[in-house]
Amino acid sequence: MFKIDHLGIAVKSVAAAKGFYEKLGLPVSAEESVAAEKVKLVMATVGESRLELLEPTSEDSTIAKFLSKRGEGLHHVALKVPDLAAVVDRLKKDGVRLVSDEIKIGAGGHRYVFVHPSSSGGVLLELVEE
Amino acid sequence: MFKIDHLGIAVKSVAAAKGFYEKLGLPVSAEESVAAEKVKLVMATVGESRLELLEPTSEDSTIAKFLSKRGEGLHHVALKVPDLAAVVDRLKKDGVRLVSDEIKIGAGGHRYVFVHPSSSGGVLLELVEE
Repeated sequence: MFKIDHLGIAVKSVAAAKGFYEKLGLPVSAEESVAAEKVKLVMATVGESRLELLEPTSEDSTIAKFLSKRGEGLHHVALKVPDLAAVVDRLKKDGVRLVSDEIKIGAGGHRYVFVHPSSSGGVLLELVEE
Repeated sequence: MFKIDHLGIAVKSVAAAKGFYEKLGLPVSAEESVAAEKVKLVMATVGESRLELLEPTSEDSTIAKFLSKRGEGLHHVALKVPDLAAVVDRLKKDGVRLVSDEIKIGAGGHRYVFVHPSSSGGVLLELVEE
């Protein structure tokens, strides 16, 4: 089934931003680093979804570039989809613009693809295999 | 319990933007108008949450101003919370900045408050009573 898997939120400081989500009453994970993405992050669980607070660990990371251009805020929305290969085929046939044509494999072994914001109402949309 | 209630996505044209979400395989509602907010919208259901595509119906609407400043994209994230009054009290005591100090009543009768993006990592966060 479809669900919102997570929202990726670019922040300057995970340590500063996570306090608000804790005060709100959400369980917030311990900080972890993802070397491949050059970020450190914490995850706040909210229902079936997560809010991921992403802080760059290098100036050449995607998140650092986003912060310097747009400031803090939502970077991407990740939707879990039931059959990623079938969905990607269908979208391509319909002329939807993807950031990359191929399904990629993430750090945790999950399969994903990004839809270009020009196709999805200005939102950078990550589709993740269920 | 907490959950992501909806994501509010500002678009120039609901008719143009909704096609992508239909192709993705999400059920998309019929278009409706909310006069008080000067928008028309469709809702795409995704798990326990909704994606709301919001098109301004007047140039002086909040969404029209957002579009002219930032372009299409995520406008706000709405979280459903178990006890809104208690949460708002707690956040105020902790010095969290709210857009308005009082809980407001929305068009559909729901109770809500907006947290200022400066407190929530750059995301305009709507807290909605369960």
